[in-house]
Amino acid sequence: MIIIMKPAHTDDQLREAIEKVEALGAAPHIIHGDTHITISVIGETKHIGPEDFAGLLGIERVVRISKPYKLAARAAKPEGTKIRIGNLTIGTGGFLVMAGPCSVESEEQTLRIARAVKERGAHVLRGGAFKPRSSPYAFQGLGDEGLQILAKAREETGLPVISEALDMQGLELVAKYADIIQIGARNMQNFPLLKALGKLNKPILLKRGMSATIEEWLMSAEYILSGGNDKVMLCERGIRSFDTQYSRNSLDLNAVPILKTLTHLPVIVDPSHGTGFRHLVSPMALAGMAAGADGIIVEVHDRPDEALSDGPQALLPSDFETLMKKVTNMAPILGVEMQASSKPKKNVA
Amino acid sequence: MIIIMKPAHTDDQLREAIEKVEALGAAPHIIHGDTHITISVIGETKHIGPEDFAGLLGIERVVRISKPYKLAARAAKPEGTKIRIGNLTIGTGGFLVMAGPCSVESEEQTLRIARAVKERGAHVLRGGAFKPRSSPYAFQGLGDEGLQILAKAREETGLPVISEALDMQGLELVAKYADIIQIGARNMQNFPLLKALGKLNKPILLKRGMSATIEEWLMSAEYILSGGNDKVMLCERGIRSFDTQYSRNSLDLNAVPILKTLTHLPVIVDPSHGTGFRHLVSPMALAGMAAGADGIIVEVHDRPDEALSDGPQALLPSDFETLMKKVTNMAPILGVEMQASSKPKKNVA
Amino acid sequence: MIIIMKPAHTDDQLREAIEKVEALGAAPHIIHGDTHITISVIGETKHIGPEDFAGLLGIERVVRISKPYKLAARAAKPEGTKIRIGNLTIGTGGFLVMAGPCSVESEEQTLRIARAVKERGAHVLRGGAFKPRSSPYAFQGLGDEGLQILAKAREETGLPVISEALDMQGLELVAKYADIIQIGARNMQNFPLLKALGKLNKPILLKRGMSATIEEWLMSAEYILSGGNDKVMLCERGIRSFDTQYSRNSLDLNAVPILKTLTHLPVIVDPSHGTGFRHLVSPMALAGMAAGADGIIVEVHDRPDEALSDGPQALLPSDFETLMKKVTNMAPILGVEMQASSKPKKNVA
Amino acid sequence: MIIIMKPAHTDDQLREAIEKVEALGAAPHIIHGDTHITISVIGETKHIGPEDFAGLLGIERVVRISKPYKLAARAAKPEGTKIRIGNLTIGTGGFLVMAGPCSVESEEQTLRIARAVKERGAHVLRGGAFKPRSSPYAFQGLGDEGLQILAKAREETGLPVISEALDMQGLELVAKYADIIQIGARNMQNFPLLKALGKLNKPILLKRGMSATIEEWLMSAEYILSGGNDKVMLCERGIRSFDTQYSRNSLDLNAVPILKTLTHLPVIVDPSHGTGFRHLVSPMALAGMAAGADGIIVEVHDRPDEALSDGPQALLPSDFETLMKKVTNMAPILGVEMQASSKPKKNVA
Repeated sequence: MIIIMKPAHTDDQLREAIEKVEALGAAPHIIHGDTHITISVIGETKHIGPEDFAGLLGIERVVRISKPYKLAARAAKPEGTKIRIGNLTIGTGGFLVMAGPCSVESEEQTLRIARAVKERGAHVLRGGAFKPRSSPYAFQGLGDEGLQILAKAREETGLPVISEALDMQGLELVAKYADIIQIGARNMQNFPLLKALGKLNKPILLKRGMSATIEEWLMSAEYILSGGNDKVMLCERGIRSFDTQYSRNSLDLNAVPILKTLTHLPVIVDPSHGTGFRHLVSPMALAGMAAGADGIIVEVHDRPDEALSDGPQALLPSDFETLMKKVTNMAPILGVEMQASSKPKKNVA
Repeated sequence: MIIIMKPAHTDDQLREAIEKVEALGAAPHIIHGDTHITISVIGETKHIGPEDFAGLLGIERVVRISKPYKLAARAAKPEGTKIRIGNLTIGTGGFLVMAGPCSVESEEQTLRIARAVKERGAHVLRGGAFKPRSSPYAFQGLGDEGLQILAKAREETGLPVISEALDMQGLELVAKYADIIQIGARNMQNFPLLKALGKLNKPILLKRGMSATIEEWLMSAEYILSGGNDKVMLCERGIRSFDTQYSRNSLDLNAVPILKTLTHLPVIVDPSHGTGFRHLVSPMALAGMAAGADGIIVEVHDRPDEALSDGPQALLPSDFETLMKKVTNMAPILGVEMQASSKPKKNVA
Repeated sequence: MIIIMKPAHTDDQLREAIEKVEALGAAPHIIHGDTHITISVIGETKHIGPEDFAGLLGIERVVRISKPYKLAARAAKPEGTKIRIGNLTIGTGGFLVMAGPCSVESEEQTLRIARAVKERGAHVLRGGAFKPRSSPYAFQGLGDEGLQILAKAREETGLPVISEALDMQGLELVAKYADIIQIGARNMQNFPLLKALGKLNKPILLKRGMSATIEEWLMSAEYILSGGNDKVMLCERGIRSFDTQYSRNSLDLNAVPILKTLTHLPVIVDPSHGTGFRHLVSPMALAGMAAGADGIIVEVHDRPDEALSDGPQALLPSDFETLMKKVTNMAPILGVEMQASSKPKKNVA
Repeated sequence: MIIIMKPAHTDDQLREAIEKVEALGAAPHIIHGDTHITISVIGETKHIGPEDFAGLLGIERVVRISKPYKLAARAAKPEGTKIRIGNLTIGTGGFLVMAGPCSVESEEQTLRIARAVKERGAHVLRGGAFKPRSSPYAFQGLGDEGLQILAKAREETGLPVISEALDMQGLELVAKYADIIQIGARNMQNFPLLKALGKLNKPILLKRGMSATIEEWLMSAEYILSGGNDKVMLCERGIRSFDTQYSRNSLDLNAVPILKTLTHLPVIVDPSHGTGFRHLVSPMALAGMAAGADGIIVEVHDRPDEALSDGPQALLPSDFETLMKKVTNMAPILGVEMQASSKPKKNVA
């Protein structure tokens, strides 16, 4: 930490700043520069933050040198986190494809689509039972019933299941039925929920908030990790931009190679929400893979005109098939393997 | 609603779109334009949204004509919402000033600051007992104990109290002790929480999300209103911008006159979070008032160097006194009255 | 300047960084912190920038301590810049109101509106002769002829005139006819144009770029100042935001008090472009004034339905009259005076 | 075009709107909806824009149905634009790689790097002679001399040359020496410059403005096309975002597949400026290719620590070699060919 004093600070203000450093158990190292006096905070600084100096007068700025996240930092696990789910190993173990409908709408619809994505090589089935909707008048998901349908689809296809939890109450249910718990963009800084996730022993897919910085995102992961749950995946799903005429969000693929250097956690890309339109999903899925993601999560629907949510961004099964072929072909070029296919618990007719 | 077909749509796609309109109980009105065919959706369209046509092929765009929010719209209560708390009438009843520390840190600190803001003319005491912090290692608030301290401060000063709830569990406690429940930016789209707020009979201060559009914000208010609670205030607290070097957020004062035309709900401005730095708070408080806000909420701390959170943005009591004088003087110029002062339940020594 | 080495830097990389500091004529001061080694760059550092260390390996980050702008910094002229135009003194000399049509459309229209704003107390007449239009098919302004019309309006009303230059060729013309040269948002980083402005002895109104940071904006002012022209005003005119449904831009009033501390240059607010809609202009003009601006620039049109550009954001003369009354009344509350009225060179009938 | 009247419009306002439509030579088609009256503008509407109705009262909104750009629209040349430069065919003719230093610093440096990128398979040599720098105190480029150096490098290596023009004066010089004229982000809406480009018969690389919407970008291309120059390439180089801690800009790859559907112009990706850091360049170059770009432009420097600009984002020749191998391997998977290599005019020793 480096404290930069204002050019016009008083002697008293400098003394107060120095005393504050000492009171926090660190050593102040004062340097008289050309225009500014700076105080380097030396010694054990783990528990000291810029906010400790926030109220002091005479300070122009406090520069943090070490990262505010510790457990999520690459250095905490240089070899990278591997998350095992059945015969899948997410992280450094191969490229992962999660696919399925936006919402679980009925047993018939879910099983139909689950079979379609399984046949085409998906590794995990996605489907929402609790839907975060900006309008109180929109379809809010089937809830408990939806989760039971997903469990049936898993039983039939062998695909592990990912579904979103919106609150503590839903979390218990999702944790009971799903293999991976998804936390949506709007809940990335729902701190009580993050604390609850920290106490679970379940993989979490933590989506990036609509306008969250990468550091805020990693701090949210830190909440879960510091609670004791080390099975966290990060999912880039598009950030808010000034231009929403032709895509709903701006998929921030820069985040992928950035995260690969900053953290050991697996990184997943969601080109469906990251674009909002079907014709953009496949190119951006491939782009995410080329940028170095550990996997993708895409929406697939065989009757998008009947979908109760996000129909226009769902791939048709035929689109998904084409995408899977390209993904499979690109893998060796990029030096990655594909995940092994999941084995169904019973045969698909 | 107007459906704009792609120039290259097929006859089948046009027929499907027309049939969908009819299936939804409305009448399609087809217009052959120079470059595009459009379908106006006529009749009872309240329950029809662009998402109903989302999955259909051959459609370029669906333009919504009426607003997606109904209860929050100005037209639903043209005279404006008035919220009564003790002898205060928020909304069209006078300019409101809420002030106090960011966090409740101790009984002594809270009472001291409560007296200071009361003496200088504040109408409501603010103070956080549950703090949303981006780091799991930062001070998270005194919780239940903090709320009891706020209640004591109210008893002594007569000032009604506002405090933030982060989740369902905290909501019960905050609702028990506070006069106004604050919902923070990070929870603006915490839909289960919004639904719970709809069932309360307590005033809510709904802060705008970090990058929420005005429409999304009003839809979140709609969640509360549609649940049955009509006591909602909107609070502009700064949006995320590309330039954070000199202010933490960008206070979006355009939102104030925009909201005054779109909705009947009272609008409050938070220049403390909206700027992040003490020297910007007073000018922006006045700017918010001049833009037409119904009130402001500001952080005040008499020892900001000891504050456990957000010290650098807290006004000193002397700053607050100067601000209150300007606010009081500006009121008649802008054609507004100040709220009547609250009467303490017991005398302040 | 402080150089923060990567935790994993090599001895060679540290030595290279130290040698680079010395080669630049400064003294390196090395501090071994808990997690990082830092090098403070001591001595004469005016001509050293982070870019000097940009290509070196082993460096995590270079933190600039002093500002990159020198002539624009408050410290260069603590008393503030005053710009004199006729009997006006812009800067610390009183609140300034510039008003007029977006475009000069005809002599008749311009004189009509010039009289209307003069009668209601405007100090400067605005009007565009060269219009930056996003479409090549839109009205591009009357050019030379437009400038001559503005000169006639000045002659009749006595109001000094401000008009925009788009390029070097237009600059000569505008400099010939206008009293203040406006540089639009799209040209804020047109560096050859800025260099040319530096060689003039004319007041410049430098609008902020659509997504320019405050530092970039001040660096553009620095271009003009360093060329020798010290008559620069800064104009906040709204930045690009993620929500353009109800306003064209987001008027960033935080910038006003920020600039008042960072620089000695006068600050003007443009609520017409900063909002894009007539009903938002007056509240935001007052808000800009309350935030501490030295003046405002607003579009006024008496027949906005006939305007060739930006009709929907133009105030009617009656709106402008009401605004001027409020502005005049607010001035003493805010501790500012109004500019003295300009005297016409001939009488207005 | 569809005009949506305010619910509270008057009969006079409706009549005025109808008359305006007729005055513009189109036919108004009035529809009485549930909440709003709308007027569809039928007939020849090419020359009618929302701005034509901008000043009318009683109008809530005008919705444009057809695109404001005509010549840049995909429909104007469905087969796609092909730009021929020597034996290169840019557009639908193969994947293109442009590489070289940020700035031309000396003949020796430029020839050295030109040889390095030529040997590793680059098709075009990039290098800046006129540099747009945010600081007036920073290196501004070698100008004319730099262009002559580039011409020598072309002569030796056979690589066509791309270089940036900042203004009209520089444009003449760049047009004289370079094979492709680059227009930087800050000049995307320099309309006089765009008009001048329209009169040239030279390929243009038009970079996207820092916060330009895709529509604004295409309108800037329309300026050049409508002037008569149809050799325009679009270059995505990163947009301004709220998070600049780990990358300078946010490379908006969504724009690539969006542009491929909206326009027939070739699309190039610049991962160097789009990220700002060397370790992010190669992953994002591959991502841009996977998203469907027609080519990339990357900065390469063999001694980045000595670079006079943008050293930290330059690839080393060895990085570039690795990238070229991956690019070449990925091409067949994505169904694209690589451009044929340019033949040097004289042999490289």
